[in-house]
Amino acid sequence: MSQTPDKACILQVSERIQPFIHRTPVLTSETFDRMLGAALFFKCENFQKAGAFKSRGAVNVVMSLSSGEAAKGVATHSSGNHAQALARAASLRGIPSFIVMPSNSPQVKIDAVEQYGGKITFCKPTLQDREASLKKVLEKTKAVEVHPYNNFSIIAGQATAAKELLEEVPGLDLILCPVGGGGLLSGTALAAAFFSEKTEVIACEPAGADDAMRSFRAGKIIPSVEPVTIADGLLTSLGERNFPIIRKYVKDIVTVSEADIVDAMRLIFERMKVIVEPSAAVPFAALLARKIVGAKKKIGIILSGGNVDLKKLPF
Amino acid sequence: MSQTPDKACILQVSERIQPFIHRTPVLTSETFDRMLGAALFFKCENFQKAGAFKSRGAVNVVMSLSSGEAAKGVATHSSGNHAQALARAASLRGIPSFIVMPSNSPQVKIDAVEQYGGKITFCKPTLQDREASLKKVLEKTKAVEVHPYNNFSIIAGQATAAKELLEEVPGLDLILCPVGGGGLLSGTALAAAFFSEKTEVIACEPAGADDAMRSFRAGKIIPSVEPVTIADGLLTSLGERNFPIIRKYVKDIVTVSEADIVDAMRLIFERMKVIVEPSAAVPFAALLARKIVGAKKKIGIILSGGNVDLKKLPF
Repeated sequence: MSQTPDKACILQVSERIQPFIHRTPVLTSETFDRMLGAALFFKCENFQKAGAFKSRGAVNVVMSLSSGEAAKGVATHSSGNHAQALARAASLRGIPSFIVMPSNSPQVKIDAVEQYGGKITFCKPTLQDREASLKKVLEKTKAVEVHPYNNFSIIAGQATAAKELLEEVPGLDLILCPVGGGGLLSGTALAAAFFSEKTEVIACEPAGADDAMRSFRAGKIIPSVEPVTIADGLLTSLGERNFPIIRKYVKDIVTVSEADIVDAMRLIFERMKVIVEPSAAVPFAALLARKIVGAKKKIGIILSGGNVDLKKLPF
Repeated sequence: MSQTPDKACILQVSERIQPFIHRTPVLTSETFDRMLGAALFFKCENFQKAGAFKSRGAVNVVMSLSSGEAAKGVATHSSGNHAQALARAASLRGIPSFIVMPSNSPQVKIDAVEQYGGKITFCKPTLQDREASLKKVLEKTKAVEVHPYNNFSIIAGQATAAKELLEEVPGLDLILCPVGGGGLLSGTALAAAFFSEKTEVIACEPAGADDAMRSFRAGKIIPSVEPVTIADGLLTSLGERNFPIIRKYVKDIVTVSEADIVDAMRLIFERMKVIVEPSAAVPFAALLARKIVGAKKKIGIILSGGNVDLKKLPF
């Protein structure tokens, strides 16, 4: 896909990926509604296949490949949810996946990629070595590179989460989602623009990794430099395919503190009885910290993923 | 209600309680299906209001009271989910609830009951003192006593969880649920008998609290004596209103070890990303431990509740 996905494209993608993903449930909480004075609707992508929304984009890319492209397999560098999602999507189509992972990746993530049949190449934990290692893998295998977010097919796949949410809960005033590289955010913004014009989209970001907010304010991509946050899914810089969509369709980007993220995560565990990773708690943290102002009453929240080490919970 | 609920009754109860409870989602897991060689459907009552299926029965009782009865309020003794569920149901109708709780109840449970407006009377942590304290409260308040399971209106309420599950997933071969006092089990068995005749019901119980299994085998209620299990919701003995229903409609009762329960609980946390209390993990433990034999392929599991202290997880 060579341009920003349009409405017809997202509808088509939604049908394409439907057999391979969960239509995740939307949960509500009386307690949270009372606390916030709003009606909140949590789209549970933490229950998605491979534990995160990333399965949507990965399945879309893999199922869109021609037989010729698919034969060589797919490749990426990732230590996170995209790696698992891509390995799973490739296994569904019966094609190889080549995943470059930093040698210091948590064992649980390595195991998950291997469980889905991904062929792992370990590299040094620097962006340079990740990219160099991936380049070598691509040269050797001729596999198709699948970037985790700077890719229109990925964006179209991630858009389907908000599309489903808007189908299940029509008339949302606002959707909140976290922003790292911008794949989920740009997809969510397109889905709102195409399927529920009155619904605004606001992105939420850790203050310790606030490059998206600064880029949004500056009108140009400002790369993330040594970000520090517990929300390990949100460390990356915005993609150049994501940024124009975000500028055009996103209302605002707000930031939250680490303490806000931990509080939000704990409350989601305790009251909603669902397991979220820190990145997924960032939008609810923004609500708790009163970073979202105005009289928005009906708010959708994308709980982006649930891949967290239960032995290392921050609360 | 003075007799075993019939089909019409359960349909009526389902409508009565619908505005006050969650229609909880049904989750599936590719990984678990692969592990067990079956198709599993988890009915997530851990996401129910007040964190457990108990809200169904409690709402049914409270909303069924005449105005005269309701005016005096409701009362029970409970240190667990029934206490919270009854306090919440009473607050919805704007009537008082009087809850007798052992003085050693966890603070988190006391807080939850108070949050729903329950008026707590503390007693010594013995059954004798719980019953004596409740008797005093009833004499003083003239409130309606609401037993947590030995009550036909409660049974009819609990039946609605399996009814919803069978509506969402028709043609289940089997439903598994935990058994303590037998409220959920007798309701589940009635729902299967009335709404999906071919669906069998098997109950699962900790080996350290196996009075229901022994009662089922003996054909008479054998009270629980000093049960020891992490599944704190399953310590009680079967009720006399529950037992005949269980004998008539339940296929079998199987038991699991404490280690099985902890393994099952951990797997549900890690793979399904949902928080369950130990009691809720007992049916999945029975599957993991291969206690359910035969060629049952399409299996419903009631995840009964999610009220667990996250600081004291057993894994």
